Amino acid sequence: MIDISELNFQQADFWSKLSELLAWEGVSDAAIADTVRNILADVKQRGDQAVVEYSQRFDRVKATAMTELEIPLERAAAALESIPAAQRQALEKAAERVRQYHEHQKQESWHYVEADGTLLGQQVTPLDRAGLYVPGGKAAYPSSVLMNAIPAKVAGVQELIMVVPTPDDEVNDLVLAAAAIAGVDRIFAIGGAQAVAALAYGTETIPQVDKIVGPGNIFVATAKGMVFGTVGIDMIAGPSEILVICDGKTDPDWIAMDLFSQAEHDEDAQSILISPDADFLQKVKQSIARLLPTMERKAIIETSLNNRGTMILVNDMQQAVEVCNFIAPEHLELSVDEPMEMAKQIRHAGAIFMGRYTPEALGDYCAGPNHVLPTSRTARFSSPLGVYDFQKRSSLIQVSPQGAQSLGQVASVLARGESLTAHARSAEYRLQEK
Amino acid sequence: MIDISELNFQQADFWSKLSELLAWEGVSDAAIADTVRNILADVKQRGDQAVVEYSQRFDRVKATAMTELEIPLERAAAALESIPAAQRQALEKAAERVRQYHEHQKQESWHYVEADGTLLGQQVTPLDRAGLYVPGGKAAYPSSVLMNAIPAKVAGVQELIMVVPTPDDEVNDLVLAAAAIAGVDRIFAIGGAQAVAALAYGTETIPQVDKIVGPGNIFVATAKGMVFGTVGIDMIAGPSEILVICDGKTDPDWIAMDLFSQAEHDEDAQSILISPDADFLQKVKQSIARLLPTMERKAIIETSLNNRGTMILVNDMQQAVEVCNFIAPEHLELSVDEPMEMAKQIRHAGAIFMGRYTPEALGDYCAGPNHVLPTSRTARFSSPLGVYDFQKRSSLIQVSPQGAQSLGQVASVLARGESLTAHARSAEYRLQEK
Repeated sequence: MIDISELNFQQADFWSKLSELLAWEGVSDAAIADTVRNILADVKQRGDQAVVEYSQRFDRVKATAMTELEIPLERAAAALESIPAAQRQALEKAAERVRQYHEHQKQESWHYVEADGTLLGQQVTPLDRAGLYVPGGKAAYPSSVLMNAIPAKVAGVQELIMVVPTPDDEVNDLVLAAAAIAGVDRIFAIGGAQAVAALAYGTETIPQVDKIVGPGNIFVATAKGMVFGTVGIDMIAGPSEILVICDGKTDPDWIAMDLFSQAEHDEDAQSILISPDADFLQKVKQSIARLLPTMERKAIIETSLNNRGTMILVNDMQQAVEVCNFIAPEHLELSVDEPMEMAKQIRHAGAIFMGRYTPEALGDYCAGPNHVLPTSRTARFSSPLGVYDFQKRSSLIQVSPQGAQSLGQVASVLARGESLTAHARSAEYRLQEK
Repeated sequence: MIDISELNFQQADFWSKLSELLAWEGVSDAAIADTVRNILADVKQRGDQAVVEYSQRFDRVKATAMTELEIPLERAAAALESIPAAQRQALEKAAERVRQYHEHQKQESWHYVEADGTLLGQQVTPLDRAGLYVPGGKAAYPSSVLMNAIPAKVAGVQELIMVVPTPDDEVNDLVLAAAAIAGVDRIFAIGGAQAVAALAYGTETIPQVDKIVGPGNIFVATAKGMVFGTVGIDMIAGPSEILVICDGKTDPDWIAMDLFSQAEHDEDAQSILISPDADFLQKVKQSIARLLPTMERKAIIETSLNNRGTMILVNDMQQAVEVCNFIAPEHLELSVDEPMEMAKQIRHAGAIFMGRYTPEALGDYCAGPNHVLPTSRTARFSSPLGVYDFQKRSSLIQVSPQGAQSLGQVASVLARGESLTAHARSAEYRLQEK
């Protein structure tokens, strides 16, 4: 039975209740950390052999050598041929739109030259090599392959290496098809902390990458946290969330289904609805009660809504914006008349879905923007996965002999103020009149 | 006595010797981690009172309440008035140039509209509030205040909160003067893990920030690592490094001093020189031997060069570039005739200093680009600190009723392929013909 909580902006303890509801602590388990630390050290030292052994143990694969665990690109191409035409077309259409959108994110090198001939700028280059972790089994999402791989390829990453565990040697054809469409360069049938270690340190067969992206279970997340610094990593994601702000004029069934679409991910997912219309909130509740029994994943949806969902009544849209900026949601739906005006007041959100015809699901699959988004209030300081995550910058500085005179004076004074006299003298050498 | 190591690209074990030389493992001490974890939990729970007690214990401050540990902005303004005119002018000149350069990094929101009226884009917003950690005592560098604070202000961060420990209540006027110039909004005389905790969680007096930047000792670095996720953090820096590539035509004294300028930072700093000219390498060695006794920080320089410095002989500049791209240095000097051409072949470097008149020291202080740069080979995947570190993005998606038809079909197929039927039905609701 649905018993979704209700909050009212007017109530005295509103903010503390809201904070409680949002609170989320990732699992932090010393035993998991120890296990992962050992696997990382073992793979670092023994390479391929260790990865093969862990894959035998955890994924029950039959392979006895790393080379048997590489999935040839021909196998992925064959998977693309083998899937139903409708799925192939949908994947290709989604990939095309994601690519188009991400082309807009590409950053270019720039520089400018000052009056004395001094050149300053920034050179933008792609990462050489990236690793893409794809979960195996039930949570294997082909859309996730597209969303993680395409930004890397748009950035110009030369070699994109995908790892995907194949428990009992079972391969997911949709995932392979998506890899073929996205242009993944090599695929290994490995997973867990051992796959993260292989990508981070390299083995005889698997080249070391510069950054590892993609979702995974707690072992994968812990391993990514531990190899950070040796390689780059993307954000470690918490449970998925949606915040819907509605003026009360959208079909309540539509809004209920939008809340379900988040809640169905897992029991910890969070769906929140804000409206200034108390009647509308009740109507959505009725829609939820009526629609829930028809849902394939009703048990998950029910638990998620009961544990972490809420309906928030506000006086006006200004309060709705205020609450939203506190929550900094991963997904924000503005189901209102003038969503673009409202979006300008949103300071923190992973993705903003505007208008009644933009359910989050469109963004999850094929609108174009990335579906890898900051969760758990981290939109306060972080961004959707993008091309910029696969590019980096080098400062460019070419000081002219003339520029070295004025800059050398300044540097000399400041360096001596910090007692760094080699710095000062290095600048002073370039002064014409010493 | 200087006994700097020498490598030759020709030798069979060149790459393994180079790897050994570059290897760096940050201190990872379980006792430090425990101490820091306790301080974080304590500050999270007890707020101001805990911060004051730790400051009394570790920094021997006399204050008994948090309010006494706030340094008023008037005090910083007074410091700016009190420092020598030459230092003030140098700081102001440096700040102006840093601000000008960083203005070029500012990212703007963008969007485009498709034929069917669907709007896609990205909204770029500044972080609300940032925390800037400044080390106290000897390592208090006013240049570091400018380099960390100015990008935040250029990004549009509304509130920039600086923390700087004041052991025995000793305040550094140059640091306060730099804070005044950079436009820091509030200053607290606290440091260590307790300051990181206060910024990450907020206390009665200190507001919670969204990101913490700035260098610190091992306690500060450990604390930053632990609060990551609650707030954003910048990279955790390893020892500073310079790689100089020289064709042999620069004054060897200049190059020796450039190597010193890195080595003088600390015993773990790393200075590497690459040249195809064996005679030149020997001349630089002679310069080093001659100049070292004249250096104020000669003990540090000597230890650093002997432990971690090296001279690498290559056959040609192509090999020099290859070695550089492996090292991915924090600072790269191209002391050659056509540095801009060579820079185009550099795939990984924090900052590239081009030409004989661009010693690294100019970039450290006043050329304009940031001196906070990726160390320990992390330039393979990360960038100089910049305005982009204080901005974040929200995807913008407004699907038109017409667009919802074609996108809805695609999303429906893909969602059903992933067994996420609430996603599918949420998209299908927006189809006109259901």
